[in-house]
Amino acid sequence: MRLRKKKWSNDVYEDYQDVIVDEFEHIKGNWKETMRVDRLRLEIGSGKGDYWHHCADVYQPDGIIGMERDFTAGAIALKKLETYGKDRKRFIHNDAKSLIEMFGEGEIDVIHLNFSDPWPKTRHEKRRLTHPSKLELYKTVLSQNGEIWMKTDNVGLFNYSVVTVTQNGFDLIELDVDFRSQEKEDPTSEYERKFMEKGQPIFRAIWRKKDA
Amino acid sequence: MRLRKKKWSNDVYEDYQDVIVDEFEHIKGNWKETMRVDRLRLEIGSGKGDYWHHCADVYQPDGIIGMERDFTAGAIALKKLETYGKDRKRFIHNDAKSLIEMFGEGEIDVIHLNFSDPWPKTRHEKRRLTHPSKLELYKTVLSQNGEIWMKTDNVGLFNYSVVTVTQNGFDLIELDVDFRSQEKEDPTSEYERKFMEKGQPIFRAIWRKKDA
Repeated sequence: MRLRKKKWSNDVYEDYQDVIVDEFEHIKGNWKETMRVDRLRLEIGSGKGDYWHHCADVYQPDGIIGMERDFTAGAIALKKLETYGKDRKRFIHNDAKSLIEMFGEGEIDVIHLNFSDPWPKTRHEKRRLTHPSKLELYKTVLSQNGEIWMKTDNVGLFNYSVVTVTQNGFDLIELDVDFRSQEKEDPTSEYERKFMEKGQPIFRAIWRKKDA
Repeated sequence: MRLRKKKWSNDVYEDYQDVIVDEFEHIKGNWKETMRVDRLRLEIGSGKGDYWHHCADVYQPDGIIGMERDFTAGAIALKKLETYGKDRKRFIHNDAKSLIEMFGEGEIDVIHLNFSDPWPKTRHEKRRLTHPSKLELYKTVLSQNGEIWMKTDNVGLFNYSVVTVTQNGFDLIELDVDFRSQEKEDPTSEYERKFMEKGQPIFRAIWRKKDA
């Protein structure tokens, strides 16, 4: 997601220094201790933050980290802390590529990929969050039995991801080609709600890291 | 599929004795030789036979066996031999449960499950053609690298099948949650065409038997 840089973005990042993590030297390997949680979730590509905030609410008492590389989207997500509170939340303004610089082995229990950028062109395949190169990083930071939860409305990304993730070290444990969050207990984003209102299908899959 | 028994059904079965196989003692282990084909496909639950006949046409020069347990549906399928011809075709009026009495190990290259009965109730799970008990039979009769090709419009059956087949000895190699046969080279059935005309999604998956 790319948004026009808003003037107030810098101020928001200033205001929420206690939620933002941008130094990893000390926290790497100690995330759960630092956040005082037993289980930790990471949303990669948290966009404007609706899903991030809802996750913190729905998956209590787990900690949830939102990661977003777009500065302005991140500012919008952070701004919502005002309404939804900071409890058990952290935010990282960065990219999945740097994952192993931020997290120690097995620190994350669930990685959420919620309506990720589909990068439909074949020459952009490497940028997809389910590309095998990313999956290698996920395997490192995920705990034993750690999971990837994916939701998307994008047919191409879903087709690609289900096969790719399943062929690269993860067991497919759930699939739904007509997932309606309204009827099931799962956080939604603004984007997702727009889709559901149109009656278009939402796809979901869950994988578990294979035993080493 | 259950259809009212039509009077002419018996006559049709009489007329096509050369296509129907109901004695397996000699042909088991010798299907390809008998049919003079190098590759062999089996459609389980061929219903009124449209997909069976189209497969023979599209996947030349493979042999294709239609299997249907409903007597009247089978008669309708056989009747269409008049129009589509008998070339490289056989028909079995029987049930998937008896598969290993009919076929030797590794005789089938592709099993087609096309718009199979979804058996939506949990207590009927065992009847689904992708239940683990059936998958064991498929593994026996499928060749090395043998494949299962599934198409369905049924969300529940698809969700169940993708997870179950992938967890029981098969590698998922293709998935499509919006498969349009019209645009791709694949045979259709009357049932499928009706669905496509309504613009409803068709789901497809392909699995390959894992190396022993």
